[in-house]
Amino acid sequence: MTRLLPGERIDDLQRSSLHIIQNPEKFCFGMDAVLLSGFVRVKHKERVTDLCSGSGIIPLLLSAKTRAGSITAVEIQQDMADMAERSVELNGLEERIRVICADLRDGRSAGRSGTQDVVTCNPPYMAAGEGIPNPESAVAIARHELCCTLEDVVRESARLLRNGGRVSFVYRPHRLAELMTLLRSYGLAPKRMKLVYPYVDREANMVLLEASKGGGSFLKVEAPIIVFREPGVYTDEIREIYGY
Amino acid sequence: MTRLLPGERIDDLQRSSLHIIQNPEKFCFGMDAVLLSGFVRVKHKERVTDLCSGSGIIPLLLSAKTRAGSITAVEIQQDMADMAERSVELNGLEERIRVICADLRDGRSAGRSGTQDVVTCNPPYMAAGEGIPNPESAVAIARHELCCTLEDVVRESARLLRNGGRVSFVYRPHRLAELMTLLRSYGLAPKRMKLVYPYVDREANMVLLEASKGGGSFLKVEAPIIVFREPGVYTDEIREIYGY
Repeated sequence: MTRLLPGERIDDLQRSSLHIIQNPEKFCFGMDAVLLSGFVRVKHKERVTDLCSGSGIIPLLLSAKTRAGSITAVEIQQDMADMAERSVELNGLEERIRVICADLRDGRSAGRSGTQDVVTCNPPYMAAGEGIPNPESAVAIARHELCCTLEDVVRESARLLRNGGRVSFVYRPHRLAELMTLLRSYGLAPKRMKLVYPYVDREANMVLLEASKGGGSFLKVEAPIIVFREPGVYTDEIREIYGY
Repeated sequence: MTRLLPGERIDDLQRSSLHIIQNPEKFCFGMDAVLLSGFVRVKHKERVTDLCSGSGIIPLLLSAKTRAGSITAVEIQQDMADMAERSVELNGLEERIRVICADLRDGRSAGRSGTQDVVTCNPPYMAAGEGIPNPESAVAIARHELCCTLEDVVRESARLLRNGGRVSFVYRPHRLAELMTLLRSYGLAPKRMKLVYPYVDREANMVLLEASKGGGSFLKVEAPIIVFREPGVYTDEIREIYGY
């Protein structure tokens, strides 16, 4: 019997019978996490670490979409890590997903250096100064750089990856130049990028970016993701990623 | 009477009665130049310099599309600069466009520092080692980094611009990370980007990027340009940019 805390609920992920525990007062996953799990490439038996993992949505989706050998979820907030752990148990995925409550700025607490084939991350998008977050809330920690900056995440990704390993981010386009510069400065070469546009005639509101540790400088900008064909109607691509 | 050299022809630009002299054995402009002239923003009376100007296609188009106060075309090859100058005369634009034959790596030969509001450039896309260019040919100089590297162009753009001035490039997506890093290292902040996709479900093959001297780090990724609706049929946006 799954233990639920006050405010928590179980949501059906509509894929491979997966379910996730979420607390709407804290943080619920969005389309960004789903798109990242559709973008990242994981080969058979590869070791994956998801940083800033929150409720564990990305590890859960990757357990269904890939044949990863191991998936580690790293989350700094004890209550969120606990919730993720209970979601893993709820789905019987203890053999495939390990949840670590750790601060990725703390030396090696998120894992040993050079051991991961793939790192994924949906980091906080907003610099600490942007907006007026409530610094106590899980939502603020997920959205603002309160517990880690973009540079912290990039540095830790570079440390965890083996040479030739790949990191995939979902991020906001308005900080893309900063993200690219940071990645390159830590020896992570941007290799594959996908822009997400809500409509074909609108500004991009998300970017998916894969970088390779020690890779060459050739970047492939893949076909765009257009979310809506018309208001309220997803494009076929989104329906496919969501597994409808 | 316009003087034409062997191999040259006069092409109708189908816009504002403009014509351009081109030599198909040397280099003819492509869609990239047209898209750049549609992307760049020039306000009334602003001073514009186009680097790597070739036959002068971008200055000619900007003379029709904008109310720039002055437009300077900088081209290193004497025969191309001469051809551009004759195109300017052919269109009676001597008052608006000035052609300079100069090597942008030579100190200040392309213009005084801090004087330009806008710089445009369609630089060579390929590093000197890529492909097997004939180093003698105008085509090779236009496409390969034989006479200048991307860094030379970025450095010179930064030098020519006033604080707050903007540079717009058209470039290949596969070197986007390198372009962004270089721009930032010379104090040019990427502010506006537009990806060009041949079809909505294909990889991008061009990128338009505007950076501001001394600007903040917020980058807007504008709606994509999709070139073809179906094979051989341009989208409305392309028809509009081309002025059909």
